[in-house]
Amino acid sequence: MANHDRHVEFWFDFASTYSYFAIQRIEAEAAIAGIDVIWRPFLLGPIFAAQGWNDSPFNIYPAKGRFMMRDLARRAAAYGLPFDERGELPANSVPAARLAYAALQGPKGPAFCRNVSAALWAEARKIADPDVLADCARAADLDPEALTELAASDAIKPLLRDATAKAQSKGVFGAPSFTVGDELFWGEDQMADALAWAATGEMATRG
Amino acid sequence: MANHDRHVEFWFDFASTYSYFAIQRIEAEAAIAGIDVIWRPFLLGPIFAAQGWNDSPFNIYPAKGRFMMRDLARRAAAYGLPFDERGELPANSVPAARLAYAALQGPKGPAFCRNVSAALWAEARKIADPDVLADCARAADLDPEALTELAASDAIKPLLRDATAKAQSKGVFGAPSFTVGDELFWGEDQMADALAWAATGEMATRG
Repeated sequence: MANHDRHVEFWFDFASTYSYFAIQRIEAEAAIAGIDVIWRPFLLGPIFAAQGWNDSPFNIYPAKGRFMMRDLARRAAAYGLPFDERGELPANSVPAARLAYAALQGPKGPAFCRNVSAALWAEARKIADPDVLADCARAADLDPEALTELAASDAIKPLLRDATAKAQSKGVFGAPSFTVGDELFWGEDQMADALAWAATGEMATRG
Repeated sequence: MANHDRHVEFWFDFASTYSYFAIQRIEAEAAIAGIDVIWRPFLLGPIFAAQGWNDSPFNIYPAKGRFMMRDLARRAAAYGLPFDERGELPANSVPAARLAYAALQGPKGPAFCRNVSAALWAEARKIADPDVLADCARAADLDPEALTELAASDAIKPLLRDATAKAQSKGVFGAPSFTVGDELFWGEDQMADALAWAATGEMATRG
């Protein structure tokens, strides 16, 4: 049973490789921990630009990029999740994130987010392509046209920009990140720490 | 019982905050996994310089630096290890790493490494100070003068530079890192993955 006083804010960018694993796994893990998840798609681009980066850090730092691709493959095998290293890096995630805020107005939002993330990182599809996004919507039992219209509305359109600003004000500098009040957790490895913190106010004992 | 065909190379810099946790914990964890550890102190400085950094990335990227300090405190509590955030960042780790290669010629090397790392990150002492290093040697039951002499010998002095070059050729871009053959693992969170890989040739199943 979810404890509705306790929740994790989940900050992710569809263009982020490591966000993929968190997007696919967080609902199941949060349910086990009895924690609600508030989905906060945001854009890494402006945050990276503020750090002086105009490309993925995995492209800017080749040794890190080579490590990442191997790490992602090992991690995918350990999770039993498909991973296609031909996924575009960095992808333009703006259209997907705008639609996600529309989808997240209802209970099918998380499924839409999982579909988008899998389109990019399990199937190497172009997530800026409206046809791909329409497929992701339909697979989540959402109507693509209604979703597109809602995403463009005055109520929904500002949410992505607001979330990116809020992420930055919370100290988020990469994705995925997780916040519990003022506590920031970074990296998909820290999803479990964030859920434990939301449940107990401390990290699980280690080692 | 250790399997002497299977080992992890452990790449660390005494100046690295996250290396501290790995240095303190790796022998006990490796013993449980039945894996030998080859200690490879190296210098992050030349590797960071090759990436265009002339300071700790935690100083270059303030948001990341703020996250790190809080993450270290949480992690120290979870491990039950002391951590003093006043430790010098970045510290000059060259004298300590040179002595470490002398100490690692015998069985007391790991204890010397733990003492140096704790001097910096549990006690905020200056690890470039010969008196501090002498204390670390004596606490590992090593003679500081003999160790200093051995460190300056033709046999030992080149080992630190060689290790730094070898780290770079293995794709190491940060510390702590762990290698098992050609497999690179980065970050103290991946110590367990590296040990599992050395034992079984794959990651432990996750999720």
